[in-house]
Amino acid sequence: MGKALIIGCGAVASVAIHKCCQNSAVFDEICIASRTKSKCDALKAKLEKTTKTKIKTAQVDADNVEDLISLINDFKPDLVMNLALPYQDLTIMDACLATKTNYMDTANYEPLDTAKFEYKWQWAYRKRFEEAGITALLGSGFDPGVTGVFSAYAMKHYFDEIEYIDILDCNAGDHGYPFATNFNPEINIREVSAKGSYWEDGKWVETEPMEIKRVYDFPEVGKKDMYLLHHEEIESLALNIKGIKRIRFFMTFGQSYLTHLKCLENVGMTSIVPIDFEGKKIVPLQFLKAVLPDPASLGPRTKGKTNIGCIFKGKKGGVEKTYYVYNVCTHEECFAEVGSQAVAYTTGVPAMIGAMMLLTKTWNKAGVFNIEEFDPDPFMDALNKWGLPWQENFNPELVD
Amino acid sequence: MGKALIIGCGAVASVAIHKCCQNSAVFDEICIASRTKSKCDALKAKLEKTTKTKIKTAQVDADNVEDLISLINDFKPDLVMNLALPYQDLTIMDACLATKTNYMDTANYEPLDTAKFEYKWQWAYRKRFEEAGITALLGSGFDPGVTGVFSAYAMKHYFDEIEYIDILDCNAGDHGYPFATNFNPEINIREVSAKGSYWEDGKWVETEPMEIKRVYDFPEVGKKDMYLLHHEEIESLALNIKGIKRIRFFMTFGQSYLTHLKCLENVGMTSIVPIDFEGKKIVPLQFLKAVLPDPASLGPRTKGKTNIGCIFKGKKGGVEKTYYVYNVCTHEECFAEVGSQAVAYTTGVPAMIGAMMLLTKTWNKAGVFNIEEFDPDPFMDALNKWGLPWQENFNPELVD
Repeated sequence: MGKALIIGCGAVASVAIHKCCQNSAVFDEICIASRTKSKCDALKAKLEKTTKTKIKTAQVDADNVEDLISLINDFKPDLVMNLALPYQDLTIMDACLATKTNYMDTANYEPLDTAKFEYKWQWAYRKRFEEAGITALLGSGFDPGVTGVFSAYAMKHYFDEIEYIDILDCNAGDHGYPFATNFNPEINIREVSAKGSYWEDGKWVETEPMEIKRVYDFPEVGKKDMYLLHHEEIESLALNIKGIKRIRFFMTFGQSYLTHLKCLENVGMTSIVPIDFEGKKIVPLQFLKAVLPDPASLGPRTKGKTNIGCIFKGKKGGVEKTYYVYNVCTHEECFAEVGSQAVAYTTGVPAMIGAMMLLTKTWNKAGVFNIEEFDPDPFMDALNKWGLPWQENFNPELVD
Repeated sequence: MGKALIIGCGAVASVAIHKCCQNSAVFDEICIASRTKSKCDALKAKLEKTTKTKIKTAQVDADNVEDLISLINDFKPDLVMNLALPYQDLTIMDACLATKTNYMDTANYEPLDTAKFEYKWQWAYRKRFEEAGITALLGSGFDPGVTGVFSAYAMKHYFDEIEYIDILDCNAGDHGYPFATNFNPEINIREVSAKGSYWEDGKWVETEPMEIKRVYDFPEVGKKDMYLLHHEEIESLALNIKGIKRIRFFMTFGQSYLTHLKCLENVGMTSIVPIDFEGKKIVPLQFLKAVLPDPASLGPRTKGKTNIGCIFKGKKGGVEKTYYVYNVCTHEECFAEVGSQAVAYTTGVPAMIGAMMLLTKTWNKAGVFNIEEFDPDPFMDALNKWGLPWQENFNPELVD
């Protein structure tokens, strides 16, 4: 049916590529491109005998628009799936505009120097994508991504207006190490040391880092501590959900994880300022990464479940109602299927589904859109089919 | 009165040297020798205008017996004060035997490769020192050192037999950092990760690391958590105190200190096995030391008190009695006087006093001796005079 150029070959990209190859009826041909072509070639070698999807590979510098344009002109994809770093969203969008190619990603653009993520840079492309007659689908992972689809689905089927959304992201996986990080520890540290924020009554409310803590009894997982964080989908949902009064995002962290991170921060091991060590400048955080278990090594050892979902509270026909929709994944099952644990799996599967929506023209309008601006029903069906089945509860425990 | 060769120029040596220079009536002349002569020269420059004690300096490799012998032959001291690393006790004792020079130290010999400290290596020199007509005084710091003097004093004046000794070492100093170590963090880590042990009914009883915890209300300090550790003076006191049934050693550690140490151990930052980092072999513990505050920088910032002492329980004239004797030091006062905080001060002052006992021939017998084998009274008087006054309590709180 179509050709996708996939930029990136990390854990999330690997899951999405596995899923594209399971879905050859839609993905006739893919090209996997990254800075390190050998990683793409290795993945191709693993997958090509299992699939009818034709696989090519390429080397690309995603910071370089000309490089991207020449790759796109060469491969002529119907869609570019950006599964690289969020720092490269804009160069890839520029290359898509220049070649009139559809675009999608899983996380919004973040300038390298500010560490602040907002949609404003990507929303500034709206008019240009519309005029070019191409689609940009922003944030087709799980959160953002499925959380926006859940919101659109709730709105479409169960509510006249949604006043409250709580997004709950629980990872109850256990890798057996006293401390390890699922990806770059710098990003984990930034998460817990950044101020939190939520949307209320038309404006952002900022909190101290980890200031708001709740305990929630997650279905199939049990009671976990969770903390209010800023998260990017709040920004678009605040614009796109009618009647919204408050949107919050909570993520679970174990006490031991937080204690280790705090101690490492206290002694200076998370600092990004280089120190002199035996005549060499070394960034403590880089050294810490080298001492910690390689995130890629966690997959085969991680056991347990994730539970990510949204709790909605609003009105239908003048009557107050609540609705909780969530997905539960098991780390071991994800790893057995695609060689990655659930954190990458829950992001990579929706990336494939978003790409499928565009390639099949199920979602077909010109411009730059967040995921909740499309019809959620076909995406919700695809979640059930492609490995992220969801469950509903019309009388859930609410968060204070 | 006499000449002392002082080997070592670290924090404890610096305190002892300050004290020798305050006591010129006994210390006519000293020679400060260490691997790095410039450190010795700097200390000499600081002290020589304040004292009548004549100060020389020298470079020496204390691992090299020939080097030591030639330095001793050159300076012709009455006594060698070994304030260097405990790894060098035996080479220095060998050099003293070869030159018939008295010897003293503050901590017992420990082979570099076993991390096990015992007196057996030094006690093996007994006959040779006796035949040479010279004295070796082992362990003239605070613990070991003053704790042995306290024991001998209790025995001499208050007991017919001592059945129980609890040695309590409390450092309630606060340097204002979330985590820092007073000296080499490797030694701190070894302390808390080593199995504990105590002496009971004629044999060692081993405990898990930090297994036995007690809370004690220290005079002038207040309630602190303390943990049973192995400590070297238990070995000699078990031999030298009549009627002994049990000897234990407790040291205070704060919860935050222990948590930080545990987290650093968990992530591998305290490992002494090198890792490959950007083409260089780096020992994680060495890198951690480089990130942590320099122990030498803690002196001027440390506030609060230390309290180290012994609680005795035994019999006199058939009647049960208890006795607690302890010293309280204030970090700020120590720093103001000699430029080191109380941890170094409480070890360095008894080193000077032990040297004084030998130079003045107050303690004068040939052989290798632990400190409790000498008359404690002149040492106890000197503690009051030279900065470590002690206090007594005949009805103390006992440790369970």
